[in-house]
Amino acid sequence: MKRVFLGAVAAMALAIPATAQPTGDLGLIVERASGSLLVVDQSDRAKIGRITGLGDLSHASLVYSPDERFAYVFGRDGGLTKVDILEQSIVNRVMQAGNSIGGAISDDGRFVAVSNYEPGGVRIFDAETLEMVLDIPTQSKTIGLVDIPGTKFVFSLWDAGETWIVDLSAETAEITKIEGMGTNPYDALVTGDGRTYITGLFGDDHLTALDLWQETPEPMPILPGYAEGREGLPVYKMPHLEGWALAGSEFVLPAVGQHEVLWVDARDLTETGRTQTHGQPVFAMARPDGRHVWVNFAHPLNDTIQVIDTVTKQVIHEFKPGPGVLHMEFTPRGREVWLSVRDAGKVMIYDTQTFEKLREIDAESPSGIFFTARAHRTGL
Amino acid sequence: MKRVFLGAVAAMALAIPATAQPTGDLGLIVERASGSLLVVDQSDRAKIGRITGLGDLSHASLVYSPDERFAYVFGRDGGLTKVDILEQSIVNRVMQAGNSIGGAISDDGRFVAVSNYEPGGVRIFDAETLEMVLDIPTQSKTIGLVDIPGTKFVFSLWDAGETWIVDLSAETAEITKIEGMGTNPYDALVTGDGRTYITGLFGDDHLTALDLWQETPEPMPILPGYAEGREGLPVYKMPHLEGWALAGSEFVLPAVGQHEVLWVDARDLTETGRTQTHGQPVFAMARPDGRHVWVNFAHPLNDTIQVIDTVTKQVIHEFKPGPGVLHMEFTPRGREVWLSVRDAGKVMIYDTQTFEKLREIDAESPSGIFFTARAHRTGL
Repeated sequence: MKRVFLGAVAAMALAIPATAQPTGDLGLIVERASGSLLVVDQSDRAKIGRITGLGDLSHASLVYSPDERFAYVFGRDGGLTKVDILEQSIVNRVMQAGNSIGGAISDDGRFVAVSNYEPGGVRIFDAETLEMVLDIPTQSKTIGLVDIPGTKFVFSLWDAGETWIVDLSAETAEITKIEGMGTNPYDALVTGDGRTYITGLFGDDHLTALDLWQETPEPMPILPGYAEGREGLPVYKMPHLEGWALAGSEFVLPAVGQHEVLWVDARDLTETGRTQTHGQPVFAMARPDGRHVWVNFAHPLNDTIQVIDTVTKQVIHEFKPGPGVLHMEFTPRGREVWLSVRDAGKVMIYDTQTFEKLREIDAESPSGIFFTARAHRTGL
Repeated sequence: MKRVFLGAVAAMALAIPATAQPTGDLGLIVERASGSLLVVDQSDRAKIGRITGLGDLSHASLVYSPDERFAYVFGRDGGLTKVDILEQSIVNRVMQAGNSIGGAISDDGRFVAVSNYEPGGVRIFDAETLEMVLDIPTQSKTIGLVDIPGTKFVFSLWDAGETWIVDLSAETAEITKIEGMGTNPYDALVTGDGRTYITGLFGDDHLTALDLWQETPEPMPILPGYAEGREGLPVYKMPHLEGWALAGSEFVLPAVGQHEVLWVDARDLTETGRTQTHGQPVFAMARPDGRHVWVNFAHPLNDTIQVIDTVTKQVIHEFKPGPGVLHMEFTPRGREVWLSVRDAGKVMIYDTQTFEKLREIDAESPSGIFFTARAHRTGL
């Protein structure tokens, strides 16, 4: 019955001409089990359609074109799919690799880059046509692919412990390779201003930062010895870039193998505190104003959310939205938060000031939630 | 001839049905002499229409609805006009006061607030209907009106030296009054996270800051004695909120009565440096990544732009776009900047990396440029 109902909604949406539909408050929600995307309207707190046929969407992510019309969806199966959120349809789809892990769009909207495990490397596509314009083989799995200002992408090599910067601003692409990033970088993030790139390492007991504003960025080890005396567990897990949050003048990191989040001074990258949490954190996401940090947890504690105040670093609210809380997305100015509760088959919407639940939306095993406002931000 | 041509463009634009037009990369440019708004497409670097009949648009500003479809235009003549950027038409227009100076939209998009000189006070309107929902008389000119998270607005009273916080999150509005802000606050800003509110003072030789995250915000004098030994000139002019910029970990302020910009530590609000400039700065605006600050100048030096590097605090580029450079707006991720060159009747578009001019667009005495991406930001 649920499928029939949802199909009807999608068909109705398609039947309505896409007249005078603004795109500033739309979003896409990944339905991993069915390989589809739910199209949502954030202001109406409603689903307005569904786009199907996107292949394997486990661990899928997506980025938006600058006009907030097109999304580029990176599937785990190597599929790169361009969808039109206004027409609610697939525009183009290419199988560009065997196994891929995320992507990015250049600041001018011209290029889409995809990070691949199999074969290792990064491939860059024309955002208009999805034709490949550059193939960068690396003999290594690539991770931590992000966009930075100036038509550039940055990514790291798991096997070689290097970070590469690709500059596409001129006719010929220029690649800068930075060695000595550490043993087995497994994920990375860039700050919202595109200045600081930080990699987590599987094989070393620290993280490595780069100041991308320097002429020749030098690897800087930060937070050394975090795992000391803790049975040599891998230091940090950074499941996704969004697993890092800038709250006020501090970063918040989920510490893995531990039930805590870690506070780091954004300026000098030293540790400033720890907060004990309900479980092993997966995402620690700052509300856009940075006042609160919302945390979800790994299985089997993934039915719970904790909210931490960034002034006191104390947990101020805890609740259980339901089984399998996989992802959170704040509305751009932080008024509401949308949660994917996979095993309840629901997306739940909460007021971030009162913590009141405002709405539930049915979805098929929802995971990642992506609002179009991401189009205007760097490094997502 | 120019008028005829422009009229034709507007008519053509209106004839095209607004089908499948995304709104993420649109913008409005204030044409002050003709009381009109130019509708522009940032990706195409083109004008796509014109909306006329907005009254006196000198010193006009505007804000966007969360869906990036509607703009609320605050005219100097007290007119509040709601325009539809997709249909390129006026939806509603009310004369709400005799003389007004800017406005703001609440984080949930429900309320639009307008700051008035004549009569003094703030009036708050339903964003849907433009019906007045709250009249806040103050017996004073009001300045520095901004939105902050939690359906709140903040503004200051010129005559009383107070800052008021209006909370509209519940059924009944709640107003908190903070006394002792100093003598004659004449403009204010709030940081992008909505936490720090800073007022400039005409009658005191310092500025006053509030930490809005505190339960009871206390006025904190900052940058005391700046004008000392400088013939008692008013300390700072903050012509617009955008006259302040957050670049990396510092604010940049235009110092008035001086040919310099001032650097201020964003964390402790102490002075960290000064950069000599070509003239008396009007706007000092950080590129969205914070690496560069673009500065324009007061008459008669208003034909010039200087670009300052935020690492070295040195001027790295200077050029003369033309007579009367009034305003600058960066594309959301900072790739390009649009300049209003009033007396040339042009909007000019530059690449922010190469400083190359990319395009010119004819406009009638252009002033403020506002891209729809502002919908997603706090305190603009």
